[in-house]
Amino acid sequence: MFAPVYLDHNATTPLDPAVREAMLPWFGERFGNASSRHEYGRAARKAIDEARAQVAAAVGAHPTEVLFTSGGSEANNLFIKGAAALMKPGRIAVSAIEHPCVREPARQLVRQGWQFDEIAVDGAGRIDPAAFEACLAGKPKLVSVMLANNETGVIQDVAAHAKAVRAAGGWMHCDAVQALGKVKVDFRALGVQGLTLSAHKIYGPLGAGALVIDKRVELAPLVAGGGQERNLRSGTENVMAIVGFGKACELAAAAVETRAVQMAVLQQRLEAGLASMGAQIFSADAQRLPNTTFFAIGGVDGETLVGKLDRAGFAVASGSACSSANPEPSHTLMAMGVEAGLARSAVRVSFGAGSTGRDVDDFLTALGEMLAGLRTLAAMAV
Amino acid sequence: MFAPVYLDHNATTPLDPAVREAMLPWFGERFGNASSRHEYGRAARKAIDEARAQVAAAVGAHPTEVLFTSGGSEANNLFIKGAAALMKPGRIAVSAIEHPCVREPARQLVRQGWQFDEIAVDGAGRIDPAAFEACLAGKPKLVSVMLANNETGVIQDVAAHAKAVRAAGGWMHCDAVQALGKVKVDFRALGVQGLTLSAHKIYGPLGAGALVIDKRVELAPLVAGGGQERNLRSGTENVMAIVGFGKACELAAAAVETRAVQMAVLQQRLEAGLASMGAQIFSADAQRLPNTTFFAIGGVDGETLVGKLDRAGFAVASGSACSSANPEPSHTLMAMGVEAGLARSAVRVSFGAGSTGRDVDDFLTALGEMLAGLRTLAAMAV
Repeated sequence: MFAPVYLDHNATTPLDPAVREAMLPWFGERFGNASSRHEYGRAARKAIDEARAQVAAAVGAHPTEVLFTSGGSEANNLFIKGAAALMKPGRIAVSAIEHPCVREPARQLVRQGWQFDEIAVDGAGRIDPAAFEACLAGKPKLVSVMLANNETGVIQDVAAHAKAVRAAGGWMHCDAVQALGKVKVDFRALGVQGLTLSAHKIYGPLGAGALVIDKRVELAPLVAGGGQERNLRSGTENVMAIVGFGKACELAAAAVETRAVQMAVLQQRLEAGLASMGAQIFSADAQRLPNTTFFAIGGVDGETLVGKLDRAGFAVASGSACSSANPEPSHTLMAMGVEAGLARSAVRVSFGAGSTGRDVDDFLTALGEMLAGLRTLAAMAV
Repeated sequence: MFAPVYLDHNATTPLDPAVREAMLPWFGERFGNASSRHEYGRAARKAIDEARAQVAAAVGAHPTEVLFTSGGSEANNLFIKGAAALMKPGRIAVSAIEHPCVREPARQLVRQGWQFDEIAVDGAGRIDPAAFEACLAGKPKLVSVMLANNETGVIQDVAAHAKAVRAAGGWMHCDAVQALGKVKVDFRALGVQGLTLSAHKIYGPLGAGALVIDKRVELAPLVAGGGQERNLRSGTENVMAIVGFGKACELAAAAVETRAVQMAVLQQRLEAGLASMGAQIFSADAQRLPNTTFFAIGGVDGETLVGKLDRAGFAVASGSACSSANPEPSHTLMAMGVEAGLARSAVRVSFGAGSTGRDVDDFLTALGEMLAGLRTLAAMAV
């Protein structure tokens, strides 16, 4: 099989061989409904308990604070809709660069009488301090700010924001899906009341995520029924995916520092090359994930470039994975005040554990040839 | 590994080797976010499209009518909460023997101003015609009746009920999770507007289910965000589980008639043996799934018997899998008017594709010895 160079790890990641190994017994030989009161059921329950301890340990939480969901989108929706459902309507505030699976459920609360606020970011994609203060003055009951942005990789000072939100009497939620495994994520240090994690961004399987939750926050379930996950997420547990998630968390926590250094080297090499081609790196001045580079080459359409790169054997993204079907320019870049034309030129490269310096060099060479080709065409058109 | 005889297929089923084979490429070698616009993403999208066609074909639906979810519980919640969210509050009626993942979301609509009705069943667990007519007189907007009960295996005449519900101006939903693969399930013939399916009850993986839906029914999503599944179920698709679900549906549709005959033979053999031990078979007179036998031996506690059978190497259930953690007697039996003491004696045996006559004989022998032992103890106690 032809395998293009995969440089889109913020969209999803390949399965780590050790995760695969951990999941394998549940892929045929072992099976069971964790609610069953026999040997098969007990074994499934035990595997889930172990995975819960692994996920908790990776983010410094207690296993009883970890609720398994089918993924990050569900965990984000569960916190926002679930907490709001048990409150009198008030204000909910989310940053202007949240993933749609935070922004949409928050925005939809307007139907139930909530006021929805977006917190502005500066040109580098960082929460604007004045906007944040103004937001807190409105006494929001719920605030959600992502730890790292999926497109720019910008890291927010969530711990400081959470402290301020708590002081103002609200609950703070944080989508840490893109941060996990790339930078240290600590539930207590962040001081948030809800933290969203996902397995498939950290070399684990699709189909598993978690909401780490401060038990003072009361939640109504999105999926009601058999009473699994402390009655907050019913449905037979996806044992295989949960086991893989647990293992992936264990590995991510152990490797995060080494990987961050490796990634940063690749990132610098890539960005130096891009700069020499006249590319603009978004959020270059902000604290960013070490694996993510979001850039634009003026006058070159991002979608077109992604298509050309794909045909040349490089898998990259033109926007956030989940909205790549959407032709509108990046919501994140619009929030940063980037001009729409330049935003349409945006391309994202996101490295992973298997990325190499060779990948960077090959990518830069291919990109350089494409740009030269495009310029020749442009010159001929004149 | 010690492998007890598994007689609890209504709780979950082992993976079919052919399903495993279909999933295997997505278990390491292949990966991708189906929303990504590169080779990895397109391959994932294609695999999901193929699975959608397989699921649709298995129940005579069109692929565009199939929405993938993380499982049956989510699909049931999506129909009930999702449809209700876009209606003015009215009446919702569900049968008195629905799974909690239908009953709970329906019951919780009361908070939003809905009236919740339960439709009574007779002593054999069949919908009571008079109760059903009385329910329709109240002009319910939403009605949900399961095709086959998870505990008794009783099959309802959903097609007739759906016709009556539509005539009365309501939408009819049907939870067919336990019926799929055991009896023929046809979306058009049933005439329902929503049909819930699950992969892990038909030798497919945990983590995948579907809501087959009449597009005239407008739904609000439970999980909002990236816009996957026609904006009705956001979140990166669990490609591996969806691929397995598709294959499992294809196999189930092909094997349903042969398997039904095999199961019926085992069921008759088991029930003849149980009758000779003085067991009462619940719903013996009703049309039932060919794989399910729910019985009680008066004076013998069901939980105790399940524990003894487990230690003797037989995995059976004392109630529905999802509520086995709940010590209350079966909700289904209570609705049938079974006396609580007898209901506490209930034990469920559910056969699967791999079950054999030998399994039945060994089970009956072990059960007979246990009962003899219990009787000796009882005699000594006198």
